Amino acid sequence: MDFGVADPIERVLRRITEEAAYGYESSTLSPALADAFAAHMQAQFGWQPGTAHVVPVADLVQALFTLVTAFSSRGQGVVVHTPIYPPFLDSIRLTGRRVVEHRLRDDGTRFVVDTPSLGDVPMVLLCNPHNPTGRVFERHELEAIAAAAIEHDVIVVADEVHADFAYTGHQHTPLASLGPEIAARTITITSATKAYNIPGLRCGLMSFGSAELRERFRAAIPDRMLGIANRFGIEATVSAWTECGDWFADVMAQLQANREQVVEFFGRELPEIGVHAPEATYLAWLDCSRLSLPGGPQQFFLETARVALNDGTDFGPPGRGHVRLNFATATPILGEILDRMARALHRI
Amino acid sequence: MDFGVADPIERVLRRITEEAAYGYESSTLSPALADAFAAHMQAQFGWQPGTAHVVPVADLVQALFTLVTAFSSRGQGVVVHTPIYPPFLDSIRLTGRRVVEHRLRDDGTRFVVDTPSLGDVPMVLLCNPHNPTGRVFERHELEAIAAAAIEHDVIVVADEVHADFAYTGHQHTPLASLGPEIAARTITITSATKAYNIPGLRCGLMSFGSAELRERFRAAIPDRMLGIANRFGIEATVSAWTECGDWFADVMAQLQANREQVVEFFGRELPEIGVHAPEATYLAWLDCSRLSLPGGPQQFFLETARVALNDGTDFGPPGRGHVRLNFATATPILGEILDRMARALHRI
Repeated sequence: MDFGVADPIERVLRRITEEAAYGYESSTLSPALADAFAAHMQAQFGWQPGTAHVVPVADLVQALFTLVTAFSSRGQGVVVHTPIYPPFLDSIRLTGRRVVEHRLRDDGTRFVVDTPSLGDVPMVLLCNPHNPTGRVFERHELEAIAAAAIEHDVIVVADEVHADFAYTGHQHTPLASLGPEIAARTITITSATKAYNIPGLRCGLMSFGSAELRERFRAAIPDRMLGIANRFGIEATVSAWTECGDWFADVMAQLQANREQVVEFFGRELPEIGVHAPEATYLAWLDCSRLSLPGGPQQFFLETARVALNDGTDFGPPGRGHVRLNFATATPILGEILDRMARALHRI
Repeated sequence: MDFGVADPIERVLRRITEEAAYGYESSTLSPALADAFAAHMQAQFGWQPGTAHVVPVADLVQALFTLVTAFSSRGQGVVVHTPIYPPFLDSIRLTGRRVVEHRLRDDGTRFVVDTPSLGDVPMVLLCNPHNPTGRVFERHELEAIAAAAIEHDVIVVADEVHADFAYTGHQHTPLASLGPEIAARTITITSATKAYNIPGLRCGLMSFGSAELRERFRAAIPDRMLGIANRFGIEATVSAWTECGDWFADVMAQLQANREQVVEFFGRELPEIGVHAPEATYLAWLDCSRLSLPGGPQQFFLETARVALNDGTDFGPPGRGHVRLNFATATPILGEILDRMARALHRI
């Protein structure tokens, strides 16, 4: 996001540099991180996760890679809902597992998740709210996934890092909040890095839904293999989740306006590009497949409009002909981005 | 260490908080870390490591755990020179490998490394300078280890984090500097966290001695499983290795005095406790076995003298009856520590 960092976070980081205590304190801060996580989940979603089985990580990609390694074996299949944030695919392929695609279905107004049988896969990587489509899955969709996971004895990793970004009219439901049976097989992974714009501070967490799940992970991946999270990251995250609500409300007001601007612009100026209003996230998933642009839309807009978008082909086969637009910027910059895209298309 | 942090490091950290850019910059800083590492090795030890195969980690324990996982299999033996810093033993046991002890031999003036046959182990974890004994292994000792490793096709992890602390008269030799054949099977791991007192910033590195070794590691442990190091840690480490030499010279002057104070004190006041002058490190390895203290020396000195030492039994079987003293503190505090230990012993 182009929105800087909340004042309370800046104060926390400056205080650490003033204290200049760079010893082993960070290894004792995990309980504070777990408490802040639980408080934030309770306040935002009415969900009370336990704090006993929370493990810090540097980032959620590290979490994906280690969880896939811990809960599946080489050659086994892992389910993802495509198109999907590319590191999900990497975490499966680069650890020698097989990607099992459950494609989201475009019903004309939004992408929906069908739940085919889970067959014999050991795990599902769920991304909710979904990146790149911006879907906030509804309770009945999540209940279908949960029922299938329970029926087939499947572990679910629920990446909920965009949960704070749900727009008016959409309610995020943590998967593990559905009930104890699904919680016991769910690892929720999240961080303050997206909503509070601090990815460089390298701090996220894994919340294991049961002691048994936590022990299975520890037996496969000893804790020290993860590296201990740093003090700046942990203290900034605690600040984000406990004292930065006003700052984030301003961010959401800007994002809500940007989202309307994006959807309205493509509908009016470039109707040949398909886009559904995201229900969460600052991402727009643009279907450019009807344009048949030379070299694909990512290369076209980069070279012709000097606008950098994410290439949909990185998000799995259904991403062909798509690009992902990040609209977390100021109104004039977003206007310039959209105008450049329109001018580039009108020139061809 | 009780010595604070060098001014240039404090300035770097304050600059980062003033810029308040906590985005994805940290993922682009690895080359700067590799360059600073190479420059420091060249300046200190006349060794020019390559910079192409340097991988940041959060700490060297993470490095040990991931390297043992990558270069050995469950059930296989891994050699360590005991007594040894406890995480070495943890990295072998908690990943399901077997500890193969090569015991250092006390020749009356110092601990020496004999090199029994490496048999069929796939790897050796070398700690040089050695924690806890403070040995700086001599070139001929390292050459014997290197020859055995080459003969038996063994991978060597060389933890050289205490290299900067070699006292006058002792010269640290990086294992990988002995020649290309041993370099090609060595992973050197180090950080600025000990010498520059910044463990809380969570930054170290692994330097792979050949492209083939790097690729073998990558195939076993995908990079993203490590978590990306944070910007504070990387920039502080670069500062430490490029602009903090004067600060460290002052630290060494204090440590040199402390080391003489410790050795002289035990020789004069408590000759029943055996200690060899460490050749590097701020650690003294105290042999209290002749005292037969109730509950062992660690518990005795904690309860009776209110002095916290590391329990030798954590360092493997030869650590029985020993404690490790950290003497990186100011002269009056060190004096108080030593006096308390003497008074406690004189009371029994």
